[in-house]
Amino acid sequence: MKEQLGVLVDQLNFSQLFVLCDENTKEHCLPSLLNAMTSLGQAPKVFCMKAGESNKNLETVEELWSFFSENYADRKSVLLNLGGGVVTDLGGFAAATYKRGIQFVHLPTTLLAMVDAAIGGKCGINFHSFKNQIGTFQHPKEILLYTPFLHSLAEAEWQSGKAEMIKHALIADLAMWNRIKHFRFEEHEKWSSLIKNSARIKIKVVDADPLEKGYRKVLNYGHTIGHAVESIFMKKEKPLSHGYAIAIGMQIEAYLAHLVCGLSMSSVQEIHQYLTSHYPKVNIEAADRADLLNFLKQDKKNEAGLVKMSLLKEIGKPNFDQTVSFEQAEQAIEWYLEK
Amino acid sequence: MKEQLGVLVDQLNFSQLFVLCDENTKEHCLPSLLNAMTSLGQAPKVFCMKAGESNKNLETVEELWSFFSENYADRKSVLLNLGGGVVTDLGGFAAATYKRGIQFVHLPTTLLAMVDAAIGGKCGINFHSFKNQIGTFQHPKEILLYTPFLHSLAEAEWQSGKAEMIKHALIADLAMWNRIKHFRFEEHEKWSSLIKNSARIKIKVVDADPLEKGYRKVLNYGHTIGHAVESIFMKKEKPLSHGYAIAIGMQIEAYLAHLVCGLSMSSVQEIHQYLTSHYPKVNIEAADRADLLNFLKQDKKNEAGLVKMSLLKEIGKPNFDQTVSFEQAEQAIEWYLEK
Repeated sequence: MKEQLGVLVDQLNFSQLFVLCDENTKEHCLPSLLNAMTSLGQAPKVFCMKAGESNKNLETVEELWSFFSENYADRKSVLLNLGGGVVTDLGGFAAATYKRGIQFVHLPTTLLAMVDAAIGGKCGINFHSFKNQIGTFQHPKEILLYTPFLHSLAEAEWQSGKAEMIKHALIADLAMWNRIKHFRFEEHEKWSSLIKNSARIKIKVVDADPLEKGYRKVLNYGHTIGHAVESIFMKKEKPLSHGYAIAIGMQIEAYLAHLVCGLSMSSVQEIHQYLTSHYPKVNIEAADRADLLNFLKQDKKNEAGLVKMSLLKEIGKPNFDQTVSFEQAEQAIEWYLEK
Repeated sequence: MKEQLGVLVDQLNFSQLFVLCDENTKEHCLPSLLNAMTSLGQAPKVFCMKAGESNKNLETVEELWSFFSENYADRKSVLLNLGGGVVTDLGGFAAATYKRGIQFVHLPTTLLAMVDAAIGGKCGINFHSFKNQIGTFQHPKEILLYTPFLHSLAEAEWQSGKAEMIKHALIADLAMWNRIKHFRFEEHEKWSSLIKNSARIKIKVVDADPLEKGYRKVLNYGHTIGHAVESIFMKKEKPLSHGYAIAIGMQIEAYLAHLVCGLSMSSVQEIHQYLTSHYPKVNIEAADRADLLNFLKQDKKNEAGLVKMSLLKEIGKPNFDQTVSFEQAEQAIEWYLEK
């Protein structure tokens, strides 16, 4: 940590350092960050926000802007965002808009933030119950990956991050997929190189299409069906985690890829078997299936009554803007449930 | 108007059009815009904000974001900002941050906005009494110059815009300076080509240095002393307009340019004579002179006790980051007062 931070501190030409954390990272991650900072002769000013998605809002951003002003942050101040996606999204937005933009660095502390949320330059907040309604595209100066932060991670958070790592392998890296298949997810300490590889895949996709005009859509694999599944379980007593829903989405969309763009049935089976071994099959009742299809019909990517999805030609080779009919979607959902 | 709008409407690939105006432009400019729109088959949704700098704040931005949400603005919506600098600054910021950025077009309605505020990609709002504390850099898709909007402009607003036009000529265009000198400011209708030329100068400077890292500072000519003069008159019964203060700043900084980087005394005289004929000399009392120097001492561009200014080598040839001592600044102020 000290070494990585040392390089960073030398690179950045800053006047003052600020840290944004939340109640969780304040307890579990901030002490080691401040320790390393102290030994580098730095004493950053720390702002702690309330944890959780419901605090990713304008009120919190205002408090952070005020904190900057009260502490005389100038254009050469730098903000370190220490946390998961909520902290990196909100901190990135606050920094990108303070005095027309100060530099920021992400120190992601969850697996999902390390391989996904912190990468890509999307930052923003929720506004009036609309998710990420207000925001901007702004890349962090640096993303500092420090995997020991993951020690305090809850199992559900591992599962969410894992699903995105599997997705990255499936859309872009057959070799990584083969490595993942033989990895024991419980051996967290051996994950470093897989995490870095996964982050690299996302960086590569984003660099190819920074403003999400086309190719970047390949990152949506598993997400069209996944979001629909997530939303119908949201009303239940026991909602599904985002990662779990995406894992189901990837299976159903693998079968759709078979129907629509020729993914072989053996690959569909391979994806299905691996994913159900880590995300055991969930039943979707008949009434929920109708809701799920209705949800799909409202997807903002639809055109002329057809759903647009990002699917796979082969493992490691994505195809975006694939057209799927509602009948095909229904058929794929049935396939998943009957397997 | 209809012709310019027609080209714009054809170019933009939009789902919905929105207009931001204020109470003044609603009365004086919106009718002709809506007329032209109607004949193009467009019916934009209009949001009217309260006029004035004191409403360039987060509350107004929130209202505008809510207006977008309530009217189902999507990423292909386009915002037309119809107004002076307050409207273009705030509208640009609201658009740049809604759904990570929708396109916007400026329709500046004041001379100052046409030649200065609408150009350069700076947008933002005031926050807790700090001017432009929150904002971002984002260029409009287009700036539509329609000089008939100026018919309703108050004299003080002409004066503010004029000062920036004179500045543009002095820092970049000797030929324009010679044209301006023989222009009768009262013949507003003849101004179109000068306004366009002035806007072009600003665009050229901004393009050369979009994020204000160096060269763009030449636009500060007249502004270091000008801001100090503006601030000491702010407390008076009769404050000076921004343009008036800048006109004084340009004279004093012309003399400083003579002291520091060799601007000839004949050019200093030429600048002084022209400016005092349009912005009659203002007296600065002894107590105010001390305040003025104190204000300069707090300028954020200072380094090692010296003021950094953008000055002129010759008319049309600027020099930024010029070092001026407080003694020289005092001497130049005395020169202005004794002339």
